[in-house]
Amino acid sequence: MNDPQPQVEPSRHRARPSGRDAKRAARTARAASSVPYITRRIPYYEVLDEEGLTLMERNADTILEEIGIDFREDPEALAVWKQAGADVQGERVHFPRGMCRTIIQRSAPHEFTQHARNPARTVVIGGRNTVFAPAYGSPFVRNLDEGRRYARIEDFRNFVKLAYMANSLHHSGGTICEPVDLPVNKRHLDMVYSHLKYSDKPFMGSVTHPERAADSVELARIAFGPELTDPVTGRPKTMLINLINVNSPMTYDATMLGSLKVYARANQATIVTPFILAGAMSPVTVAGTVAQTLAEAMAGMAFVQLLNPGAPVVLGSFASSVSMQSGAPTFGTPEPALVLYSMAALARRLGVPFRSGGSLCASKIPDAQAAFESANTLLPSCLAGVNFMLHVAGWLEGGLSMGYEKFVMDADQAGMMHTLMAGVDLSPNGQALDAIREVGPGKHFLGCTHTQANFETAFYRSPLADNNSYEQWEAEGATDMARRANALWKKQLAEYVEPPLEPAIDEALQDFIARKKASFPDSMV
Amino acid sequence: MNDPQPQVEPSRHRARPSGRDAKRAARTARAASSVPYITRRIPYYEVLDEEGLTLMERNADTILEEIGIDFREDPEALAVWKQAGADVQGERVHFPRGMCRTIIQRSAPHEFTQHARNPARTVVIGGRNTVFAPAYGSPFVRNLDEGRRYARIEDFRNFVKLAYMANSLHHSGGTICEPVDLPVNKRHLDMVYSHLKYSDKPFMGSVTHPERAADSVELARIAFGPELTDPVTGRPKTMLINLINVNSPMTYDATMLGSLKVYARANQATIVTPFILAGAMSPVTVAGTVAQTLAEAMAGMAFVQLLNPGAPVVLGSFASSVSMQSGAPTFGTPEPALVLYSMAALARRLGVPFRSGGSLCASKIPDAQAAFESANTLLPSCLAGVNFMLHVAGWLEGGLSMGYEKFVMDADQAGMMHTLMAGVDLSPNGQALDAIREVGPGKHFLGCTHTQANFETAFYRSPLADNNSYEQWEAEGATDMARRANALWKKQLAEYVEPPLEPAIDEALQDFIARKKASFPDSMV
Repeated sequence: MNDPQPQVEPSRHRARPSGRDAKRAARTARAASSVPYITRRIPYYEVLDEEGLTLMERNADTILEEIGIDFREDPEALAVWKQAGADVQGERVHFPRGMCRTIIQRSAPHEFTQHARNPARTVVIGGRNTVFAPAYGSPFVRNLDEGRRYARIEDFRNFVKLAYMANSLHHSGGTICEPVDLPVNKRHLDMVYSHLKYSDKPFMGSVTHPERAADSVELARIAFGPELTDPVTGRPKTMLINLINVNSPMTYDATMLGSLKVYARANQATIVTPFILAGAMSPVTVAGTVAQTLAEAMAGMAFVQLLNPGAPVVLGSFASSVSMQSGAPTFGTPEPALVLYSMAALARRLGVPFRSGGSLCASKIPDAQAAFESANTLLPSCLAGVNFMLHVAGWLEGGLSMGYEKFVMDADQAGMMHTLMAGVDLSPNGQALDAIREVGPGKHFLGCTHTQANFETAFYRSPLADNNSYEQWEAEGATDMARRANALWKKQLAEYVEPPLEPAIDEALQDFIARKKASFPDSMV
Repeated sequence: MNDPQPQVEPSRHRARPSGRDAKRAARTARAASSVPYITRRIPYYEVLDEEGLTLMERNADTILEEIGIDFREDPEALAVWKQAGADVQGERVHFPRGMCRTIIQRSAPHEFTQHARNPARTVVIGGRNTVFAPAYGSPFVRNLDEGRRYARIEDFRNFVKLAYMANSLHHSGGTICEPVDLPVNKRHLDMVYSHLKYSDKPFMGSVTHPERAADSVELARIAFGPELTDPVTGRPKTMLINLINVNSPMTYDATMLGSLKVYARANQATIVTPFILAGAMSPVTVAGTVAQTLAEAMAGMAFVQLLNPGAPVVLGSFASSVSMQSGAPTFGTPEPALVLYSMAALARRLGVPFRSGGSLCASKIPDAQAAFESANTLLPSCLAGVNFMLHVAGWLEGGLSMGYEKFVMDADQAGMMHTLMAGVDLSPNGQALDAIREVGPGKHFLGCTHTQANFETAFYRSPLADNNSYEQWEAEGATDMARRANALWKKQLAEYVEPPLEPAIDEALQDFIARKKASFPDSMV
């Protein structure tokens, strides 16, 4: 009597759900499959106790005070800090202990609304909420048919469409892949347009140049107008969320500061993310990486609050470790998960939304390595309490490549996280005591009333996992998951239907873009 | 400035560790790589609060009282229950509320020692400890060279050797695969001998017939003698741990009860495991499955305590869900993880060690599906607080197949769990403030003193993950993880060296087996 047992015959006739309780459960479950974002009903997982968390905060303050942060090639930033009372020496800013925390806690919102052009897709970032967004920034794409090649705008559109169709993704993301067939200095216009045209989910603006950030805001205003004031906050509507990476260790550069300032002043959300390959941009230890990440992120978030008190900011953490043998980044290892659990707790203590995680991997292809590494990042991210999760779908090869198959595989995993984060149903229907009474010892539950009433919604159903018998799997071609994923993304793209967009708005967007593009020459660098 | 960034050049010259602190850390880490078992330094993750856990306990009592448990074809068991005060009607036993819990808590140990024939491999099961054991019970094996075929005793020996060589596995397991080339009624002798001969880690006894259980105990006595009394407890040494599966729902059969009685009376450990494919052997809900599992397991554990108060018992939970479409078992889905978190907490409240989890999957091959599903079981098992984890390495195809490649891939993942469960190092070396001071803004950490002193032990190193550049990976054959795993298990088997076994003991074991085999005819059924 070993653990493995043969498959069980399912019930032949499938009665329709009968109990009211079960019908309600079924409706809830269907609704949940396209919720605009997740509101968790499970606890957070934390690895540090009060003492450990306090120590990390103290060390972050030590870094800010003793070592300081560079704000490079941005005299305005230095002036702002001087004015606020920091000790500015050259481009190095030293902060009195507690200063950054105080500035942040005085005005940064605990959670905020990022509007989508379709209000049903609007998300709330922070609190007990989690928003899933696709991967960001790959110059390459990969699929089983073509292998790996440079990304094109067509790929960008494809991924926007796939993200739009994925119930488990709440966000259209940003630079979902780099359309390298378009001029570097104009492609942001096509990217923002694609998000607005082929999806109605919220999305991210350009951060590669302050002017491109301004273009992103302008295009969003055209799409969202005329009502651009948030009726709840009385502030400009937050239509964009934007990824500001810190040049760790302890350096903000002019490009990122420029974009940050544009977005902060327009009340658009900024994610301030120390980008850390531990061992290279931070110490080789978890505790060192955590303290440094907190210090760097606090400096950036405080700067946002100085520019525009109340502007939405997110504490970001991207921490991988590098291989001490090759210097290459590694993913899905235990140390970054420990950083993640620690940083999420520190963000909650600070009182700001938290960004981290995703389906990160170093693998070049959607194989077992990719899956192990992705699962070992996605699940910790969900348990830790990430509020805005970038890189949830498509990530391959340390972010250098966006995988078509990987995208739908990851979206499947993201779907499972919805069920996990919904927690345990303790209603009478969930307790199912009547089912146990009805069936009794030695019988099976497949045909019982409770199972019949709940089978439509019972258990997460993966579109990609093969659970068939060995014989059936073999008869169907003995496929691996990547092969099935290949068929799925093609089917989805074939079935894609554009969300409605008012023709006048579409025309205005295209107009703005055409004028902008005509106003300066293309550049490919 | 997107998240993906190019690889970082590692330091060219690698100085030897210099700081004392770091040297100590290095020694600890090296020792940790072959610890006999894990003692966790991270918190448990729980999904139910006090109210939810109490509700589950109440429902389990309701099941035990109202519905009852069948003890089939075992008049002795029924007599024991009657004597203890239960309400026995035919083969059905009804238990007054709280009766099973009281019996268990009166005498079952919170944790116990399972001795290995090499004392350095002895494990403590329970408390904050986790013991990893290979998969159990597959009739088939699979590898990239041969595909899938029936398992043979040679495969059994191979997996015992691989488990012996895996630093991340603490246990040799039991029916690591079914040697179907040997007679059904004698193969247990060859299996137990293989565990004793080719490994010195602790292992599991046969449960397919009471006499085979008795043979397992006898062989262990020969190998362990002459001192068979545990000096700490004064009871017979626990040399075996054994898997007793409940025929869920709510039924114990004569075979399992027979083996359970042999082991319980010999003070050998029993894992009482309701084997549940939810939707078939339990309700389609998490809360229903949890209450039923608790009820069934408590009845079996209490029975052990009635037979031999103080005999080691483990609360087991094996819960998968079935596909409501095909009736096939599914793995790595969110519902079984919720069961796992709940059951681990309930076992702690009851005060007994907990068995669950592993690297479970439905996939037939070591692809992304296998990895996603395995990671989504292994990680929750570690966070939940499993004390004895069966099926950690090799499991494929719902347990029908033992994979050679999967085995080494899973052992790699199990290694990562050691690092995860060690938690965050908050020592001065872990905090690494001096490293941050030394490096400062805009520099990199690769060459700094702290990195040099710690690089040997910094970060978990996977033997199977490819973290190289795309170009290097392609130049090396563009392998997937399964292909690299194929090379690794072959290398390991080629390098295997038998642990020492006293010739007199070996002879005595072989003698016993020869006499036993000669005493009755072979049977293949």
